[in-house]
Amino acid sequence: MPEASRFFPFLHWARTYDGAMLSSDLLAAVIVTIMLIPQSLAYAMLAGLPAEVGLYASILPLVAYAIFGTSRTLAVGPVAVVSLMTASAVGQIAAEGTLDYLTAAIVLALLSGGMLVAMGIFRLGFLANFLSHPVISGFITASGLLIAAGQLRHILGVPGGGNTLPEIAMSLSGHLTAINPATLAIGIGVLALLFFARKYLKPLLVAIRVPACLADMMAKAAPILAVAATVALATGLDLGAGGVALVGEIPQGLPAFGVPALSLDLVSALLAPAFLISVVGFVESVSVGQTLAAKRRQRIDPDQELIGLGAANIAAGLSSGYPVTGGFARSVVNFDAGAQTPAAGVFTAIGIALAAMFLTPLLANLPQATLAATIIVAVLTLVDLGAVRRVFAYSKSDFAAMAATIAVTLGWGVELGIVAGVLLSLLLHLYRTSKPHVAIVGQVPGTEHYRNVERHSVLTNPEILSIRVDESLYFANSRFLEDTIAAQVADRPELKHVILMCSAVNAIDASALESLEEINRRLADAGIGFHLSEVKGPVMDRLKGTEFLEHLNGEVHLSQHGAVSEVRSQCQARGRSTMDAASGAQAR
Amino acid sequence: MPEASRFFPFLHWARTYDGAMLSSDLLAAVIVTIMLIPQSLAYAMLAGLPAEVGLYASILPLVAYAIFGTSRTLAVGPVAVVSLMTASAVGQIAAEGTLDYLTAAIVLALLSGGMLVAMGIFRLGFLANFLSHPVISGFITASGLLIAAGQLRHILGVPGGGNTLPEIAMSLSGHLTAINPATLAIGIGVLALLFFARKYLKPLLVAIRVPACLADMMAKAAPILAVAATVALATGLDLGAGGVALVGEIPQGLPAFGVPALSLDLVSALLAPAFLISVVGFVESVSVGQTLAAKRRQRIDPDQELIGLGAANIAAGLSSGYPVTGGFARSVVNFDAGAQTPAAGVFTAIGIALAAMFLTPLLANLPQATLAATIIVAVLTLVDLGAVRRVFAYSKSDFAAMAATIAVTLGWGVELGIVAGVLLSLLLHLYRTSKPHVAIVGQVPGTEHYRNVERHSVLTNPEILSIRVDESLYFANSRFLEDTIAAQVADRPELKHVILMCSAVNAIDASALESLEEINRRLADAGIGFHLSEVKGPVMDRLKGTEFLEHLNGEVHLSQHGAVSEVRSQCQARGRSTMDAASGAQAR
Repeated sequence: MPEASRFFPFLHWARTYDGAMLSSDLLAAVIVTIMLIPQSLAYAMLAGLPAEVGLYASILPLVAYAIFGTSRTLAVGPVAVVSLMTASAVGQIAAEGTLDYLTAAIVLALLSGGMLVAMGIFRLGFLANFLSHPVISGFITASGLLIAAGQLRHILGVPGGGNTLPEIAMSLSGHLTAINPATLAIGIGVLALLFFARKYLKPLLVAIRVPACLADMMAKAAPILAVAATVALATGLDLGAGGVALVGEIPQGLPAFGVPALSLDLVSALLAPAFLISVVGFVESVSVGQTLAAKRRQRIDPDQELIGLGAANIAAGLSSGYPVTGGFARSVVNFDAGAQTPAAGVFTAIGIALAAMFLTPLLANLPQATLAATIIVAVLTLVDLGAVRRVFAYSKSDFAAMAATIAVTLGWGVELGIVAGVLLSLLLHLYRTSKPHVAIVGQVPGTEHYRNVERHSVLTNPEILSIRVDESLYFANSRFLEDTIAAQVADRPELKHVILMCSAVNAIDASALESLEEINRRLADAGIGFHLSEVKGPVMDRLKGTEFLEHLNGEVHLSQHGAVSEVRSQCQARGRSTMDAASGAQAR
Repeated sequence: MPEASRFFPFLHWARTYDGAMLSSDLLAAVIVTIMLIPQSLAYAMLAGLPAEVGLYASILPLVAYAIFGTSRTLAVGPVAVVSLMTASAVGQIAAEGTLDYLTAAIVLALLSGGMLVAMGIFRLGFLANFLSHPVISGFITASGLLIAAGQLRHILGVPGGGNTLPEIAMSLSGHLTAINPATLAIGIGVLALLFFARKYLKPLLVAIRVPACLADMMAKAAPILAVAATVALATGLDLGAGGVALVGEIPQGLPAFGVPALSLDLVSALLAPAFLISVVGFVESVSVGQTLAAKRRQRIDPDQELIGLGAANIAAGLSSGYPVTGGFARSVVNFDAGAQTPAAGVFTAIGIALAAMFLTPLLANLPQATLAATIIVAVLTLVDLGAVRRVFAYSKSDFAAMAATIAVTLGWGVELGIVAGVLLSLLLHLYRTSKPHVAIVGQVPGTEHYRNVERHSVLTNPEILSIRVDESLYFANSRFLEDTIAAQVADRPELKHVILMCSAVNAIDASALESLEEINRRLADAGIGFHLSEVKGPVMDRLKGTEFLEHLNGEVHLSQHGAVSEVRSQCQARGRSTMDAASGAQAR
C-alpha cells in the first residue's frame, strides 16, 4: 500500500475521510465554484478561446489533480499567465476563432501534460530551478501588464489584438475613434465595482458585524455579482443590438472526450511553447502549494506534483480544455474556506459541470467587458513593483536579469521574455562565479587564524603566498585561479611556496583539477612548491583517486597554520644550508 | 609610457633589445620558418583554400601579434582545429574552389578579429570559461580524428569530402575503386618517414653524438625534407601526368592588401562560426601562452591577448589570409629554439614572405599527399584518449559532457559539437549545484564542533534542526533548500527551531534571499524559529541592507554552538514555564 499511495496520493487521505472533512470540503467547493465560473470564462477569452473551453478546463483537470497531486488545497484550473502564454503560442499557428486555433490549444494542453508527467517520472523537476525568482517575478509582472493592456480593447469595445506592448498600443491607438460608449460604461462600472469590493467591501461588512471570514468570502464573490448584474442589464436593455460585444451562445452540456487530430507539424511547432508553459506553470503551482502546505505542516512532493499537474493537463487535452495549472488566488480562497482534501477539487469540478449543463444559456448575454474588467482586476495584483525595487537594492546583477525579462516580455512577447531572462541569469551567475572572491591571507598575530591581508593587519612572508578562494572550483573559474596565481608568481621573484587554502571549496570538477595540475606543473617549472590546506572531506576523497596528489610538488595540510609552519621551517632549513655551504666555501 | 606599453606590449621589451636577443630570435625564426612552410600550405589545404592563403596567413598576422600580443614566445599562424572550423563554416556558404569560398574565409578572419578585439576591450575574456576542459579536450580529440579521416582521401588519391565522420566514411567508401597507386605510395612513404622521424630520429641522432637540442630540431624539420623529396620525385617522374594530385601553380609574391567585398548576408551567416572560432582559438592560444610564460616566470594578460589575437586575425583578413591563432607545436619549438621576444615572430614573417616571393615556383609539383601526411601526423598528437580515461575516472558528469562533445563533433560536425558540449556542461553544472550537499549536523560530544549526523556519532535534540548547506545559495538550489526544510518540518512534529549553518555559503543571490524569506514565513506560520549561524562577512554585509533580518523569526549567531546553546536554553525556559503553568493549574 505505501507504494500505491506514492503514485496515487489520494490514498493517503481517502481512507480516513469523514463527515467533518466532507462538510468542510463541500463549503470550500461552493465558494471556489462561484469564483471559478467568471474566471474560467474570462481566462478562456484571454487565451482567445470560446468561453466554454474555460469551463471544460475546470472539470476533468481538477479530478485528475485530486488523484495524482500531493497538495491538499491547491486549486487547479485556467490561470492568467498560462492563458496569455497559450494565446501567444497558438496565435502563431492559427487565427483566433478558427477550429485550428482551438485544436492547437487542446494539443498544447496534451503536450504540456505529457512533458510534465515525463519530467516527474525522470525527476527533472530541477529544470524549474533555471527560473530564478527575479526572472519569474519580472515575467509575471510583465505578463500582468501585458494582459491588462490587452484587455483594454474589450473595455473600450474596439477591435484589435497584439502580443506585445507596442503592438497592443498601436492597435488600440488605431481604433480610438470607434469606442463603444455602452461597452465603456459597463467596463468602467464593473472595474469600479470590483476595485471597491476588493478594497472597501470587507471592512464595510465587518463594520456592520458580518464575521470577518464571511465578509472576505463575500468580497471575493463580487465578480459573480458583476456577471449577474451585467447579464441582467444587457438582456434588459438589449445591449447586444447596441454594439456591446457579448459572450454569445455557449454550447450547453459536458465536453466531448477524445484525442484531437494530431499532425507532426503542429506538435513540433508547439513543443517549445509547451515546454515553457509547463515550466512556468509548475513553478507557479509548486510555490503556491508549498506555501499553503507549510501553514498546516503538510508537505508536497515536487516530483509527484509534476505528475499531478501533468495528469491535469492531459485531462484538459482529452476533454477539449486548454493548459491549466495551480492558481494562486483560488488556492488561497480554497484554503481559507477550509478545504481539507483534494475532494474539494472534485466537488468544485462537479459544480462547474453543473454550470456547464444548466447555466450556460444564462451567460449568452454576458458582456465581454465584464470579463475583461474581471481579468484586469485579477492580474493587476500580479504586478509587483515592490519586488523590482527590492531586487534592485539587493543585487544589481539579479536586477539586470529581471529588467531584461520585463523589457523583453513587454517588447517582444512572453516566450522571448522568459528565455532571455533565463539565459541572462545563467550568464550573470557564471560571470559572478567565474571571478570568485580570492583573498591573499596572512596570520593574525598570536593566533592560528589566517585572514585577508587587505582587511586585517596580519603577518606574511615574502617566500610564501597563502591564497584563499571563496568558491567551489569549476570550469568557469578555474582559469581565473590560474591567472591569479600566475600574476602573483610573476610579481614576486622571491616566492618559494604557494599554499592554496581550500576551506570554502565545496567541489573541484575535472576542469579545475586540470587547472590545479597545470598550476602545479608551472610552479614546479619555476621552482616553487605548491601546497593545499583545509581540503574538505568529500573533495579530498575524490582527489585521492587521481594522479594529482602524486604529481603535487608539495603537501596537503590539515590546517593553513600547519602548512605555513611546515613550509617556513623548510625555507629556514634551506636558508641555513645555503649559508652553511657559503661559509664552507669561505673556509676552504 | 606605462599607459602606452599597456596597449602596445612590445614597448616592454623593445627598449632593452640587444644583440644577444637578436641572435636568439633569429635562430628561432629560422627553425620556425622551416616548420611553418609545409604547415601553412597543409592547413590551407585542410581549410579548403589555395596553398598561398596559408602563406599569407603566416606573414602580417605574426607582425600584428608581435605588436599587440603579450606572450613572448607564442607562434601565431594557421592551426589545424581552426582550419577545420573554417572549412566547416565556409563550406556551408560556398563551394570549395570558388572565389566566394575564398572571400568568405577572409571575411571570417576579419569578423573573428573584430570580435576578439571587442572582447578584449570589453574584458569579455571570461566567456572562454564556458568551455570546460573536458569539452575542449573532447572537442580537440574529435577534431583531430575528423581531420585525419578527412585527409585519407588525399593519401588515397580519391575525390570526396564531408564534414562529419559518417559523411567522410560514406564518401571514401564510394571511391575505393579509384585509388591512385602512385599517390598512395607517396602518402604512405611520407607518413612512414614522419612517424619514424618523430619516434626514432632524435634518439638515433643523439646516439651518433648530435647534441640533444639540435637532434630535436632536426627531427622537427622532417616535414620540409619530405616536401623537398616528394617535389623532386614528382618533378623527376612527372607524377602529375600519372594522376597524382599536385598543389599546382602558386602565385608568386606578397598578398594584396585590402578589404574584401562585404555583404550583410555573408556577415550575418558567418557571425556564429566566427564567434566559435574566436573562443576556441583564444582558449587554445592562451593556455599555450600561459604555460610557456610560466616557465620563465613571465606573465601574459588574457584580456590583452584577445586584442593581440584579434589584431592578428584582422591582419589576416586584410592580407587575403584566413583565421589564425597561437599554435601549440610551433610555439613550443619557438620557445625551445630560444626565442626571447615577439621579434622572432616578425623574423618568421619575413622568412615566410621571402618564401612567398621566391620559393613558390618550386612548390607547384608538391604532391597533396605529402601535405595530407603532414597533417595526419600533426593532428594525431591532438587525440588524447588518456584524458578521456582520466575524466571518466574522476567525474561521470564531466565525462558525459566530454563524450557528448566527441560524439556530436564526429557525427554532426564541429559547430554543433562545441555548442552541445558547452550546453551540456552548463546543464550538468547547474544540476550538480542545484542539489547541493546538505547535512543535518549534531554536536560532537565534549566539543563545540558540529558534524554530519550520518558520518559521526553526535548529539542532537528533537526540538532543534541544525542543517548545513555546502554550497552558495543561488537560484538553482534555493528551491531545493525550501524542499529540504519543508520535508524535515513535516517529518518532525516536535520541531521548534531550525538553525541554518552557513559556513560554506559564499554568496546568497536574490532568489535565495526570497527563499530564505519564504522559509522564514512558513516556519513562522508553523510556530518554528529560524536562525542562521556562521554567516560569512561579505554575505552578512549584503543581508544587512535587506528586510530579511527584521523579518527573521530568530537570530543570527556567530557560531553554530552559540546558536544551539541559546536556542536550547530558550526551549528549556519555555518547557519550565509550561510546567510551571501546569503545576500552577494543579495547585489551584
